[in-house]
Amino acid sequence: MSDRIHATYWLETGDDPARAAETIAGEQSSGTFVALATETPELKARSGARVERLEVLDHSATPSLPTPVRSTRYTRCRLELSWPIENLGACLPTLMATVAGNLFELRCVTGLRITDLRLPPAFAAEYPGPAFGIAGTRRLAGVDRGPLIGTIIKPSVGLSASETAEQVRLLVDGGIDFIKDDELQADGPHCPFDERVRRVMRVVNEAADRTGKKAMVAFNLTGDLDKMRRRHDLVLAEGGTCVMVCLNSVGLVGLRELRRHAQLPIHAHRAGWGWLSRSDALGWDYAPWQVFWRLAGADHLHVNGLRNKFSEPDDSVIAAARSVLAPLMPGAPMTAMPVFSSGQTGLQAHDTYSALGCADLIHTAGGGIFGHPQGVRAGVEALRASWDAAMAGEPLAERARRDAALAGALEFWR
Amino acid sequence: MSDRIHATYWLETGDDPARAAETIAGEQSSGTFVALATETPELKARSGARVERLEVLDHSATPSLPTPVRSTRYTRCRLELSWPIENLGACLPTLMATVAGNLFELRCVTGLRITDLRLPPAFAAEYPGPAFGIAGTRRLAGVDRGPLIGTIIKPSVGLSASETAEQVRLLVDGGIDFIKDDELQADGPHCPFDERVRRVMRVVNEAADRTGKKAMVAFNLTGDLDKMRRRHDLVLAEGGTCVMVCLNSVGLVGLRELRRHAQLPIHAHRAGWGWLSRSDALGWDYAPWQVFWRLAGADHLHVNGLRNKFSEPDDSVIAAARSVLAPLMPGAPMTAMPVFSSGQTGLQAHDTYSALGCADLIHTAGGGIFGHPQGVRAGVEALRASWDAAMAGEPLAERARRDAALAGALEFWR
Repeated sequence: MSDRIHATYWLETGDDPARAAETIAGEQSSGTFVALATETPELKARSGARVERLEVLDHSATPSLPTPVRSTRYTRCRLELSWPIENLGACLPTLMATVAGNLFELRCVTGLRITDLRLPPAFAAEYPGPAFGIAGTRRLAGVDRGPLIGTIIKPSVGLSASETAEQVRLLVDGGIDFIKDDELQADGPHCPFDERVRRVMRVVNEAADRTGKKAMVAFNLTGDLDKMRRRHDLVLAEGGTCVMVCLNSVGLVGLRELRRHAQLPIHAHRAGWGWLSRSDALGWDYAPWQVFWRLAGADHLHVNGLRNKFSEPDDSVIAAARSVLAPLMPGAPMTAMPVFSSGQTGLQAHDTYSALGCADLIHTAGGGIFGHPQGVRAGVEALRASWDAAMAGEPLAERARRDAALAGALEFWR
Repeated sequence: MSDRIHATYWLETGDDPARAAETIAGEQSSGTFVALATETPELKARSGARVERLEVLDHSATPSLPTPVRSTRYTRCRLELSWPIENLGACLPTLMATVAGNLFELRCVTGLRITDLRLPPAFAAEYPGPAFGIAGTRRLAGVDRGPLIGTIIKPSVGLSASETAEQVRLLVDGGIDFIKDDELQADGPHCPFDERVRRVMRVVNEAADRTGKKAMVAFNLTGDLDKMRRRHDLVLAEGGTCVMVCLNSVGLVGLRELRRHAQLPIHAHRAGWGWLSRSDALGWDYAPWQVFWRLAGADHLHVNGLRNKFSEPDDSVIAAARSVLAPLMPGAPMTAMPVFSSGQTGLQAHDTYSALGCADLIHTAGGGIFGHPQGVRAGVEALRASWDAAMAGEPLAERARRDAALAGALEFWR
C-alpha cells in the first residue's frame, strides 16, 4: 500500500479513453478546463492525480447517460486513479469530494461508477472504525456462533409506542436475538422515540431478567445531532444495547459524531441506496461506499439479501457483504457485520453461508418468522435451525425431518 | 398548504401505474411486501402515504433502469404522494429516508426521480434556514446591486498557502467581490487551512484598509465537525466573511451543526451532484434537493452555469437557480443565493439575467477573468460591465463601444 489514495472506476466515454482518463484526473486534482501558467510541471507532478491503469473492456453504440457531446462509439474501461495524500490529508469528507465529486458531470463521461477504493494507513490513524464490530455485537447480543436471528418492526410506521412494545413482547418471548425499527420510524409524534424506548426496554428487560437472554434492539435515533446524542443516552440508560441510524440522512459528520458519543453498537441503514446505485452506469458500488462508513464507525451495515424483494441481483448482494467482512487495511481490519434483509427466510441460509464462508452476520426476516403456523417462537427456531444446518453442511430437508419447527416453516417459506 | 408532506416524482414502471403508485406509497409508510393483520384500515388511514395524483405522460418499450421483472411496456407518469407529518415530525434526516429512501430500489420501479417537495410550516419552525442569505451576503461583500463578481482559486489543488495568497492579491487588486477555494482544497498537508487563511486574509485585510472594499473569500472548511468549528473560528478571527462546505461530503448533520455554530455566510458546494442527477431516470432534481440544504442553513448554493463545461443542460441550470431564489414557504422564504460557475464569462450575463429576472447571485469566472489581455482588473471590470449592460437592457456589443475593458474581453471570450 502506497501513501497514495487509489480509486477504481467503470468508465464509459465517447472520447479517446486515454484523453478522458487524463481529463478526469485533471478535474479531480490540479487541472481545469483551460491550461494555466500556474499549473507548472512541478506542481502537476506533485499534486496531480495519476492514471495508474486504463483497460478497455468493450464498446457501445449509444451512450449510457445523456451527454451534449455525441460520438459514434462509446468505450467502456476500467480506470484506476491515484492521488497523493498531501492533496487532502486523511479527511473522509474531502476524500468524498475528491474520488466522487465533480467527475460524474464531465462531458467526456457517459458512464461512471466508482468500484473500488484503497486508502493509505493515515486514514486508519485518523478514524476509529466500528467500536463493537462482530465480537462486540455477539457479546452484547449473547450469540456466540451463527447469525443473529432478527426482524424488523412492521408496519414500518403507524404503531404506537405501546403497540410496538407488544410486538416486541411476542418476539422476545419467541427467543429472537435482534429487532430493529424501520428506517421510517424515528421520532414521529404518533410514536415518540422516548416513549417507544421506555416501553420496549421494559419488555426486553423483563424477559432478560426471566430468561437470562437480552434481545438486541436497534432503536432508530436518526435526527439532528443533539437529538441523536440525547436519544442514545436514553437507550443506554434504559439498558438498551444498540442504536440505528440512516447514513444517507445524517451524512458522514452525523455518523462520525454519533460514533464519538456512542457507547453502543451503531446499526447503519442505507435507505437511499437506490439513488446511489440503481443505474448500472452511474454512481457507487457498495465496496467503496462502505469504506467511508466503516471508517466513520458503523458496526452493522445493510446489504439487502439473496433473492430479495427489491431489484438488486444476488451477486451484488454477496459482493457487498464480502466487502463489509473484508479487512479494511493491514493492521486495521475494522470489520463490520453485514445485515441481510428483504424477503428473507431460512431458505437463503445455505446459499448465504456458502457464499460468505462464515455466519458473522445479522439475518432479519419478517413474514418468514411471523408467518409460522406454530407461532413466532417456531418461526425464530426454524430460521436458526436453517443456519445450524447450513453451518453443519446438512441439507435443509434432511434437518427438517428431525426439526418440527423447520418442517412447519418449509411449508410456508416456499 | 396542508399539514402533510408532498413529494412529486417522475416514475417509470412496467407494472400497472396505479398499482406501482400504491406499492411505493406502502413501502414508504405503513405497508410492506406482505399483508399484515396489524396494518389495520384505521392504521392505514392514519399513517399511510396517499397517492394524491397520478398522470400518465408517455410509454417506452424498454426499461430505463435494470430490473428483474420484464414487461412489454413501461409507463412514465407524474406521481404525487403525501404523508402525514405525524409519521416523522419535522425532522430533515427522517424526511430524506421517507421521500428518498428505499423506494428507488423497488422492483416495480424502472425509473424514479424526485422532482418536487413541499413541506408543512413545522419544518420552518424547526430549522433556521440561511442566516445571511442575499441581503446578508450583499452587506458583507459590499455589493449593493448586481451579482457578486467572483472566481475560484486555480489550480484546484497544488498551490501552497503563500502561492494562494499571491493569487488572491492579484484578484483583490483587480477589484473582485468574491473568491472561493476549490472543493478539493480544504486542509491538505501541502496547503494547510490555517496557514492559507492567515496568509490570504492578510492580503485581503491590507487591501480593505487601503481601498475600503473587502473581498469575500469562501474558505473551504469541509471536514469533521470539531475541525469545521475551529476553522470557522479562525476565519472569523482573521476578519474573513465567508466559509465554504461540501454538502454531500458532510451531510445534513454536518451542515446543520455548522449553521448552529457559524457567524458567517455558508457557501454550499454540491460536489457529487453528478451521481445524484446525471441519469435522467434516477435520483434527484435540484428543486427538492436544495429544500433540505436551505432549511439546514445554506446561504449560497451552486447551480452550474449557462453553456457550462459540464454536461448539464441550460434549462436544468435555470430551473435550479430559480428554485434557490423561490420562497420556501409562506412566511419563511429562506431565500439563498445561487452560484453560477463553469465556463462562465460576461457572455452569459444577459441570458442569465433575463432567465432569472434578477441579479441576486454570485457569478464566478476563471479563464474569463484571468485571460483578459489587459489583466485581472480589466477581466473583473468586463464581467461587471456585462452585468450592468444586462440589467440596463443594453446589448453587450453596444456597451463594449464605450467600455475598453469589455471590448478587450469580447475578443477572447468568444
